[in-house]
Amino acid sequence: MLITLLTDFGTADYFVGALKGAILSVNARAQIIGITQEIPAHDVQAGAFTLLAAYSSFPTGTIHVAVVDPGVGSARRPLLIATRNYFFVGPDNGLFSYVCEREQGVRVYQLTNEKFFRAPVSATFHGRDIFAPVAAALSNNVPPEAFGELIEDYVRLDPLAPLRESGAAWSAKIIHIDRFGNLITNITRRELSGDEFAEGARLEIGGREISSFRRFYAEETGGAEGELFAIWGSAGFLEIAANRASAARLLHAERGQTVRVAGLKS
Amino acid sequence: MLITLLTDFGTADYFVGALKGAILSVNARAQIIGITQEIPAHDVQAGAFTLLAAYSSFPTGTIHVAVVDPGVGSARRPLLIATRNYFFVGPDNGLFSYVCEREQGVRVYQLTNEKFFRAPVSATFHGRDIFAPVAAALSNNVPPEAFGELIEDYVRLDPLAPLRESGAAWSAKIIHIDRFGNLITNITRRELSGDEFAEGARLEIGGREISSFRRFYAEETGGAEGELFAIWGSAGFLEIAANRASAARLLHAERGQTVRVAGLKS
Amino acid sequence: MLITLLTDFGTADYFVGALKGAILSVNARAQIIGITQEIPAHDVQAGAFTLLAAYSSFPTGTIHVAVVDPGVGSARRPLLIATRNYFFVGPDNGLFSYVCEREQGVRVYQLTNEKFFRAPVSATFHGRDIFAPVAAALSNNVPPEAFGELIEDYVRLDPLAPLRESGAAWSAKIIHIDRFGNLITNITRRELSGDEFAEGARLEIGGREISSFRRFYAEETGGAEGELFAIWGSAGFLEIAANRASAARLLHAERGQTVRVAGLKS
Repeated sequence: MLITLLTDFGTADYFVGALKGAILSVNARAQIIGITQEIPAHDVQAGAFTLLAAYSSFPTGTIHVAVVDPGVGSARRPLLIATRNYFFVGPDNGLFSYVCEREQGVRVYQLTNEKFFRAPVSATFHGRDIFAPVAAALSNNVPPEAFGELIEDYVRLDPLAPLRESGAAWSAKIIHIDRFGNLITNITRRELSGDEFAEGARLEIGGREISSFRRFYAEETGGAEGELFAIWGSAGFLEIAANRASAARLLHAERGQTVRVAGLKS
Repeated sequence: MLITLLTDFGTADYFVGALKGAILSVNARAQIIGITQEIPAHDVQAGAFTLLAAYSSFPTGTIHVAVVDPGVGSARRPLLIATRNYFFVGPDNGLFSYVCEREQGVRVYQLTNEKFFRAPVSATFHGRDIFAPVAAALSNNVPPEAFGELIEDYVRLDPLAPLRESGAAWSAKIIHIDRFGNLITNITRRELSGDEFAEGARLEIGGREISSFRRFYAEETGGAEGELFAIWGSAGFLEIAANRASAARLLHAERGQTVRVAGLKS
Repeated sequence: MLITLLTDFGTADYFVGALKGAILSVNARAQIIGITQEIPAHDVQAGAFTLLAAYSSFPTGTIHVAVVDPGVGSARRPLLIATRNYFFVGPDNGLFSYVCEREQGVRVYQLTNEKFFRAPVSATFHGRDIFAPVAAALSNNVPPEAFGELIEDYVRLDPLAPLRESGAAWSAKIIHIDRFGNLITNITRRELSGDEFAEGARLEIGGREISSFRRFYAEETGGAEGELFAIWGSAGFLEIAANRASAARLLHAERGQTVRVAGLKS
């Protein structure tokens, strides 16, 4: 059974090792797959986005353990979420918010059955002491309802979707900046088809206007190095990229920054 | 069979890949689990601490391969250590020192049986050429005594425990700084229970005094951002942490720095 | 079946997770082993070197997926390469060039059978949409010829070997700098045996001359900290290293920099 890990633990400390060990202590046959351990420390929104971008690549039945947990030890609840295709285990702080927007058949359980926890449960490392052993027990075919009670009022982040300003404009934002300096916005094909650029649509960011669109990064358009363009990224979001350069560096862009879509034919 | 890896190889070079390949070439069914590859280069003491913090999370029988090996190729001996619950494979330079302090039934073998080495053995990469194939052979159920002779005089680091200054004080130190900027000291529940803070105990570090204690990082105490406090960390050591901030940055702290525990009722 | 991953995706984004998920969606029993995900972005030559240094440590039959792919989405071809001992899957841009120089029985297939691709194929992430599912299908024992047509004109980088200047000298270069600051040159035992240093051979780099040679890094030669020496590295290339120091820092060295071998007896 596949168990993935997505955390803000970094890879230099003992945290990830301890979490893996805690899973394997309950199910030595679990197959543990790292998604990333480098979510910025305590950045729940970043964790929620990266989980959203990766989770559906995995086979049905995969158990996704996600731990970005600044409230560890406090009253924030530990969760197990079962959807039609996947399971998710982690803290109730919005980390599974975007995934729950997209998945069907979402049932959210508060983890209350301490029988499945590592004893004693520390106040500082629920990844190792609660989420890992619960995920491992689940991978041993313990049914979700054995871990706790169904709840409805789990924590939700603000929806990921951009806001419609008018028929001709959207107010969007940068939700992630990737290793290559591409700026991932929260615009999807539900808001835009991409063809609008040919008809005069443009992106506005930090005083710059971007009106060209490419199908792939290396597309030959005669553009100079550093020319900015829009492109559909592999997670389904519109990105701002630069010809053989980092758009993030060129635009001094930051996550959360506003991107306006303007000039749409309404 | 589980084989964990803890090294100072980093993750950008071919070293870890080569080590994994060397294990799988001997036992293609070995399950390889990374603890961390980011021990600071040549920092045996840091490796010893991280191994200590992670190893016991793994199931009984796990083989821990640890390679922080500035003396590779020299006369320093290659070791296999069998304890009641685990196996350890790596260089004889103190890397297994803290683990041996804590484990029971410690038997230390010098690896001399070249039959289990990769041929030819390079002078620069015993991780790939000695430790990996030995661990893999062990995972194939070769008994520990087949690899070499028992020795007693393996290298030990200075003990991890703090020094008692008097009935009312301990001289401790920072043994690790984690990703979140928490300062892990060498103080355990053997030296302190945590309750002493309520009765006037304090930590002294770099001219600052810390006299508050929390059960978990996000505990609501009305404290301002950056307020310093003591807390039990998940590896069993007392930590110095800061309210929604990095204690390391606030205190300009460094590993090895002295932390005094003072004001104890003796 | 073993599938290794070598990419320039970094480990902080969702890319590697998505690639692993895409493999496991086709073959849930595939054993995925990371070599490195930290090839510098778009640096095909660096990827080719690291793959060369690591691939042959793995057991026969291993499938190596390598993705450093600045031309993704363009006309550059996707490849499957079968050699006597291994398989390689990735883009046709020279990434497999050094491996093909060394392997025997090299057959190169252009991936044209879209039946084995993830649908729909994005224009920006062939790692997830083409290379991962093809590697996974291969691990399910689909024969190589099922994926496409044999080609001969795959992209080759300049050969890795140094150039002979004269009987007494070679013009070599730095092809990699590792985590420890060691400078890996393209000189192998085919060009030099190492014994020549005793007879007056020297390396020239950036105005410095290096004429001492060691068998292992910690060899006791009475040398001062920072003394430079030549040494055979574990991937079979001559390295320039420094006594308890980083040769890269001492020499302000860069990859691609020229290293002359001079003073050879011809």
